[in-house]
Amino acid sequence: MQSNYKNIIENAYNLTKPLKDLGKLATYIPELANVNPNKFGVHMTHIDGTHYGIGDNQEKFSIQSIAKVLSLTLAVKFIGEKIWTRVDVEPSGTKFDSLLLLETYNGIPRNPFVNSGAIVICDILLTHLEHAREEFLEFVRDLSDIPDLTYSDNIADSEKATGFRNVALCNFIKSLGNIKNKPEDVLDFYFDMCSLEMNCQQLSHTFAFLINGGRKLNNGKKIISRSQAKRINALMLTCGFYDESGEFAFKVGLPGKSGVGGGIVAVYPNNFTIAVWSPKLNPNGNSFKGMKLLEDITTHSEMSIF
Amino acid sequence: MQSNYKNIIENAYNLTKPLKDLGKLATYIPELANVNPNKFGVHMTHIDGTHYGIGDNQEKFSIQSIAKVLSLTLAVKFIGEKIWTRVDVEPSGTKFDSLLLLETYNGIPRNPFVNSGAIVICDILLTHLEHAREEFLEFVRDLSDIPDLTYSDNIADSEKATGFRNVALCNFIKSLGNIKNKPEDVLDFYFDMCSLEMNCQQLSHTFAFLINGGRKLNNGKKIISRSQAKRINALMLTCGFYDESGEFAFKVGLPGKSGVGGGIVAVYPNNFTIAVWSPKLNPNGNSFKGMKLLEDITTHSEMSIF
Amino acid sequence: MQSNYKNIIENAYNLTKPLKDLGKLATYIPELANVNPNKFGVHMTHIDGTHYGIGDNQEKFSIQSIAKVLSLTLAVKFIGEKIWTRVDVEPSGTKFDSLLLLETYNGIPRNPFVNSGAIVICDILLTHLEHAREEFLEFVRDLSDIPDLTYSDNIADSEKATGFRNVALCNFIKSLGNIKNKPEDVLDFYFDMCSLEMNCQQLSHTFAFLINGGRKLNNGKKIISRSQAKRINALMLTCGFYDESGEFAFKVGLPGKSGVGGGIVAVYPNNFTIAVWSPKLNPNGNSFKGMKLLEDITTHSEMSIF
Amino acid sequence: MQSNYKNIIENAYNLTKPLKDLGKLATYIPELANVNPNKFGVHMTHIDGTHYGIGDNQEKFSIQSIAKVLSLTLAVKFIGEKIWTRVDVEPSGTKFDSLLLLETYNGIPRNPFVNSGAIVICDILLTHLEHAREEFLEFVRDLSDIPDLTYSDNIADSEKATGFRNVALCNFIKSLGNIKNKPEDVLDFYFDMCSLEMNCQQLSHTFAFLINGGRKLNNGKKIISRSQAKRINALMLTCGFYDESGEFAFKVGLPGKSGVGGGIVAVYPNNFTIAVWSPKLNPNGNSFKGMKLLEDITTHSEMSIF
Repeated sequence: MQSNYKNIIENAYNLTKPLKDLGKLATYIPELANVNPNKFGVHMTHIDGTHYGIGDNQEKFSIQSIAKVLSLTLAVKFIGEKIWTRVDVEPSGTKFDSLLLLETYNGIPRNPFVNSGAIVICDILLTHLEHAREEFLEFVRDLSDIPDLTYSDNIADSEKATGFRNVALCNFIKSLGNIKNKPEDVLDFYFDMCSLEMNCQQLSHTFAFLINGGRKLNNGKKIISRSQAKRINALMLTCGFYDESGEFAFKVGLPGKSGVGGGIVAVYPNNFTIAVWSPKLNPNGNSFKGMKLLEDITTHSEMSIF
Repeated sequence: MQSNYKNIIENAYNLTKPLKDLGKLATYIPELANVNPNKFGVHMTHIDGTHYGIGDNQEKFSIQSIAKVLSLTLAVKFIGEKIWTRVDVEPSGTKFDSLLLLETYNGIPRNPFVNSGAIVICDILLTHLEHAREEFLEFVRDLSDIPDLTYSDNIADSEKATGFRNVALCNFIKSLGNIKNKPEDVLDFYFDMCSLEMNCQQLSHTFAFLINGGRKLNNGKKIISRSQAKRINALMLTCGFYDESGEFAFKVGLPGKSGVGGGIVAVYPNNFTIAVWSPKLNPNGNSFKGMKLLEDITTHSEMSIF
Repeated sequence: MQSNYKNIIENAYNLTKPLKDLGKLATYIPELANVNPNKFGVHMTHIDGTHYGIGDNQEKFSIQSIAKVLSLTLAVKFIGEKIWTRVDVEPSGTKFDSLLLLETYNGIPRNPFVNSGAIVICDILLTHLEHAREEFLEFVRDLSDIPDLTYSDNIADSEKATGFRNVALCNFIKSLGNIKNKPEDVLDFYFDMCSLEMNCQQLSHTFAFLINGGRKLNNGKKIISRSQAKRINALMLTCGFYDESGEFAFKVGLPGKSGVGGGIVAVYPNNFTIAVWSPKLNPNGNSFKGMKLLEDITTHSEMSIF
Repeated sequence: MQSNYKNIIENAYNLTKPLKDLGKLATYIPELANVNPNKFGVHMTHIDGTHYGIGDNQEKFSIQSIAKVLSLTLAVKFIGEKIWTRVDVEPSGTKFDSLLLLETYNGIPRNPFVNSGAIVICDILLTHLEHAREEFLEFVRDLSDIPDLTYSDNIADSEKATGFRNVALCNFIKSLGNIKNKPEDVLDFYFDMCSLEMNCQQLSHTFAFLINGGRKLNNGKKIISRSQAKRINALMLTCGFYDESGEFAFKVGLPGKSGVGGGIVAVYPNNFTIAVWSPKLNPNGNSFKGMKLLEDITTHSEMSIF
């Protein structure tokens, strides 16, 4: 890791930490409201394998929707291009859990990162994998090098008990013919998938294959092709932040993905990944301080894909 | 220009040219229907100043919505960040001339490249510039190094006579308070702006400031700041192709902008610009063969920002 | 019954019966597809107690959404005006199972006859009645004078197995806070409610309180007040036929309610009720021949509320 | 006039007059804001020709959208059923000037009383009548027995200068192919039509043909057929009050039509017409006190079509 990266991260962290946090804890999953709202950590992993973090970068949190990139990766790896007949690749222009566009487009979700799209990806995995739940966990264990990674029952159960909007989405798509398994099975898998926990260091490590042509940094193992990795990066750029995706591309200029647990991961192809965590969310459902920190980093460093 | 760029373009041109063109000529501006539908040209300008083209790359065509990037640049240059209180930076998720989202978002267009957004940018220029129509033309003449560039009265008049949807958009935004001048004045300027004509070589030359940190290639003249150029590139990536923007990012992986005249310009920051022209449009209003050619180029060359 | 009523019905029946039926059997509840599509019956009950029917007027069919008027009546009877804080009284302007307007209006369904509204009425009954399921059945038994009336398990189970759209609706409203009980309990009651079966004679008898100031015809027992009966009639007129309600008011001119089982009941206050059944539905989900017959009756008789 | 009608009106007037007026003057037509907001008048015309009024029932006001019933009547009279291929007969479920549903239904307005529908009716009249503007005025003069009735230039000019939403609507429908004349000509006629002025007595007299089988009360002259009159009444009931139509049917139970000038006319077929005027409007654009007065009248008198 070049020392200037370390400086950039430290400066951004120190500038952002004292800011008044205008965000609010996610409330729709009760369990998420139990987290300490003042947690703040960041970790960067460079393509040369060096890495550096600061703050609460070693504390685990619920990665939530960030896991959608991983389930998409598994679907792309095993099933390939035909998943795009079931999900589109366009930004949604609406809230992350909107039913409006589903109605317009006959059950084809706008992209794999809105909830409806991630639910359809879960349905695809359930159909094509023998034991989707277990195989997905194995896949993420390998990618993250966290051998004892498990689904968090607390988080998953909490969402199962309150995730009425996702139950609605899944049943609505089922009624339009684009869910093939039983809605309750699809939702169980979806809630489990979103319940994974990592810390910032692990998260930045896990996503490093996307800056390295589809291969893991530490052992060069091929996860997906270079072209597939580029396309996932393109999707994160256009659709990774719900209806704030344009703003993130505009101000930060990197592909990335956020979760309602307050985590964000961003990738700069051929350069680095960066994971940040701060639990309080802005009105668009993205980490308030996480967005500020990333904006600060790319503004001062001029590191952006544009 | 490195010779491999030349090869890449020639190969892509030769592969795309014989494809059956499934597109259709734009019909909503009658004058555009008079163009020869078989025209096909491409031109690349490299950051080192070398350039290369093939086919009908020297023939002028109506650049239409591509000009929206130039009017936005002028607005950013002279008025700066405050234009973003009047227009948002999010992909629209809908057709380029949709009124739906306007209604939801109180007259703030989703981005400056949907028609409604470009109309608001024209309104801003009319308010802030003494002679907006003339100053915009001067600005593009300087940028393009085409000293005798003029608005095409044929094209502008043809659109004025039939552009009822744009009249509706402008009056609707006016009713919501986000147009400050008379709708007819704003529309006159808007139709003029869209009537500019260039050939592929000129177009790739004109857009070169966006790959060069906001400065012209040939004389280093500063047009906008490096950060402003990056942000315009980000906007082209997320919003440049109407409701096919995600698809273009996914398959081509470069910022770009299309027009219903069949032109497309794409930019690879710090590397090159490329302009392609083929008049027949796919159902999303983007040049059918132009999209194919650009997809071919970046697939084979692995040149993409991701 | 005046003899001219008998003539009017016979003439309308004989005119409509030979018409080519352009409708289609409902397919979204598999059990409904097993009915003989050529059934056709009609029965009129006059306010003086006389009644007359023809065709398959003695054969039971699934009344489906027609039951929504009966659950609304029970809610109005026991809970009164406060139900209108949970459901509105406006025509929806959209398909009967649309989620679009729910999203706009924060979980308050447009009226009690769209599916979402009837689901909220079921939720209200579950909250306010000790044994809603049983009390509703008792209520309809009394109203219809069918002492052995029961829910049809075949029909209810068939809809439970396939009614994903209704599951979506109920969970969506729950997520917006306008369902107080468990979605599965509300849906169970809703599917049961819609599974009631009657024949045309029974149906026209059951609805007679709405032409008689809220009192049963045969024994004068007060069901609801005169004013409440008028308001339910008003709701049937504006909202009784999904997005064909305006057409029905325009062409037939009577309050009424249809069901996807092919039944329609119409009421002419202070005069008569009429129930018609023909299973094949027009594209708006209303009985094709049923609509024709009622149109014919009121056109020739000039009996309408207008 | 039976004396009980007189009592009912006086009582309702005296009960409603002292109510705090929670409405607001219409602001979108500047000229309408110059009216005295405390004006309040009502006039009833009975089918036997007797009539009675109270308050400011002799003062003229701008009838605005109430005129849409008269232009529709003229279209029905001269062109007949084929107008229904250009306009539908369904409640809109949305605001009176919404563009949303137009987009969904390909330029066919939902009904002739939303602005878009009335604009299409004006277009139809312009196409089919030699001198639509003059013939419409003649028609209303004859109907109202006001030989010197004229368009109000003040009102029409005021709306022409500010009616951007209507300009948007007309051009939008034009772009969808359902306006045949020039948008500016259609709008001129539309604004003129809405500028007519009458007092409550004249208004209740003018609408009396709708309670009398399509014939004028005073001389029996046939305006339209009995069936056509019924259908216009049905349309007023389902669509006469924008997105408060259901509420009006529910609470008042009579067909009627309101205007942003604060006037409302309601009809009870075979019985009476009633016109009320109070300029301040509720949030749905209907006269606040006018609605209250009519609700009071039908609640106490039990006079409703239901």
